[in-house]
Amino acid sequence: MAGVNHRYILRAHGDEGITAELFALEEAPVPEPGPGQCLIKVLWLSVDPAMRGWISTWPNYRDPVALGSVMVGFTVGQVLASRHPDYPVGCFVLGRQGWQEWALSDGSDIDRRLDPDQAPLTAHLHVLGHTGLTAYLGLMRVGQPMPGETVVVSTAAGAVGSTVGQIAKLKGCRTVGITGAPDKIASCLKDFGYDAALDYKAEPDLPAALGRACPAGIDVYFDNVGGEISDAVMQHLNVGARVVICGTLGILDGETALGPRVNRQLLVKRARMEGFLILDHLDHAEAARAELAQWYQAGKLRAREEVVDGLAQAPEALMRLLRGDNRGKMLVRVGAPAD
Amino acid sequence: MAGVNHRYILRAHGDEGITAELFALEEAPVPEPGPGQCLIKVLWLSVDPAMRGWISTWPNYRDPVALGSVMVGFTVGQVLASRHPDYPVGCFVLGRQGWQEWALSDGSDIDRRLDPDQAPLTAHLHVLGHTGLTAYLGLMRVGQPMPGETVVVSTAAGAVGSTVGQIAKLKGCRTVGITGAPDKIASCLKDFGYDAALDYKAEPDLPAALGRACPAGIDVYFDNVGGEISDAVMQHLNVGARVVICGTLGILDGETALGPRVNRQLLVKRARMEGFLILDHLDHAEAARAELAQWYQAGKLRAREEVVDGLAQAPEALMRLLRGDNRGKMLVRVGAPAD
Repeated sequence: MAGVNHRYILRAHGDEGITAELFALEEAPVPEPGPGQCLIKVLWLSVDPAMRGWISTWPNYRDPVALGSVMVGFTVGQVLASRHPDYPVGCFVLGRQGWQEWALSDGSDIDRRLDPDQAPLTAHLHVLGHTGLTAYLGLMRVGQPMPGETVVVSTAAGAVGSTVGQIAKLKGCRTVGITGAPDKIASCLKDFGYDAALDYKAEPDLPAALGRACPAGIDVYFDNVGGEISDAVMQHLNVGARVVICGTLGILDGETALGPRVNRQLLVKRARMEGFLILDHLDHAEAARAELAQWYQAGKLRAREEVVDGLAQAPEALMRLLRGDNRGKMLVRVGAPAD
Repeated sequence: MAGVNHRYILRAHGDEGITAELFALEEAPVPEPGPGQCLIKVLWLSVDPAMRGWISTWPNYRDPVALGSVMVGFTVGQVLASRHPDYPVGCFVLGRQGWQEWALSDGSDIDRRLDPDQAPLTAHLHVLGHTGLTAYLGLMRVGQPMPGETVVVSTAAGAVGSTVGQIAKLKGCRTVGITGAPDKIASCLKDFGYDAALDYKAEPDLPAALGRACPAGIDVYFDNVGGEISDAVMQHLNVGARVVICGTLGILDGETALGPRVNRQLLVKRARMEGFLILDHLDHAEAARAELAQWYQAGKLRAREEVVDGLAQAPEALMRLLRGDNRGKMLVRVGAPAD
């Protein structure tokens, strides 16, 4: 398996903003597996909004990626050499092999083997993977929607958001999406079945527009952004509403951003805001994945993908995602499977 | 029962600030009970921080007190004339007779009869009444403290706060109080058993002082204020922390006050902020009151009272409370019981 392994190294943290220049492409030899190791050829790389936090030194739920090390990321790969009993040559794996074409693994950064006949491999990076689980478990375990309730989703056309909207609809809720482009609005309504969708960039008065879109108020808000979009939502919370804090893409400067205090709204509505991190809920992942797979195979759960080709494109793919320019789950096709 | 009934009428809402001039003292004849009514002589009036919200038109969990009507308040009274089968002459009642010396009741604004031998009558306006229940149910049902956890309380020497601190201590927690005067600090430590107490007006760096007082971080924050005190607490939340929003005395201008956005902290710590209103939890009041009474009768739960004499003092008592000048539960002694 001699050859060149291209990989992206993090060379600076992005506290002052994320740019493609934070990453350096370097070459290394493709490594040979030692005892208990396997060699994984990376096929697909998932590009996620959470990466913004992983590469800054703002307080976060994990330590920042160390400077000089390979950038972290969820991947689908194929084992092409193996001295590991659980991962024979040819098998497909979901793991955290990061931004590189080849990776050695002792299994600790492999999440599970994949059956390529069950679903397209990339589905394990969105609806059947951490994206789908984040949507499902965040909505169901923290948001706790009841049939007939109104669920509002920010980044409604994004990978997590679009899945939340569809799950809420499958669970009998009225769904309202907030997104930021006319074609994303169309996708929300046509592809993801939202009952209503709002373009926060085009609405002259977002709070008023939300009020019209949610005549019975808002019971669950699945929040991927924070900031002014969320300020608008908070004005329409019902008594007992639940706000799932899943992401903070709309808050650009960490802990110092100012906004309206939420205390009065939470008190008056006896509402709840709660941070959600998938890692705390993995006990429930298997049951969640089973229901997601059932919906997906029945054609009830749709996922859009935006694919860029080649590891070299990974930094620009991340930039596209963070600008909101992507359409669907952002994926990098790193390599092709063996015949 | 002929005579004069003094009563305070609300003559303006306090959206621009609460002043004693919002209330007008007027005289009316003492009424006669009709069929199914009783006549209550008000003995004690409870003065509560929530009154600020009741007399403003900011969004709230209840409609504002109507202009021209008797000011609302929790009271202990004695029935001195009766045509109501449940409330015979001489009995003591806890109710919502408001800021007046005499009140007719059909029973709908009476909460329960009181046994004057079980506890001092005034205890039913604090540790055994809505104050104690707010502390108990807010802490236990929303804060959900576990033994060994650190519980921080704002307005720690106040009626609700001091009860929260004592309950948390009885439940095996480390308790840290935040208050605003040296003698209140002493009272927190001596009367209410806090493990540490901080004077937010005297600390040059409240976040740092909190860090020192809470070396294991903060698991539960029982918040009666909001504002900068809470901003300091939020910096020390542990993973899975619970913030009980019980009051917002530190937020002066309703919905427009700006402060640091809490989204990042809630997400990174997977913490929860939740508004609490006693009215949502009355199903659990009886069990809570039983435990509070047991502690109180065993001398394990202390309550300070600050008493002013005469209904005429009620507006000034409210002003004292809102300024934080009171020491203990603020009560107005409106009348004396019959011999």
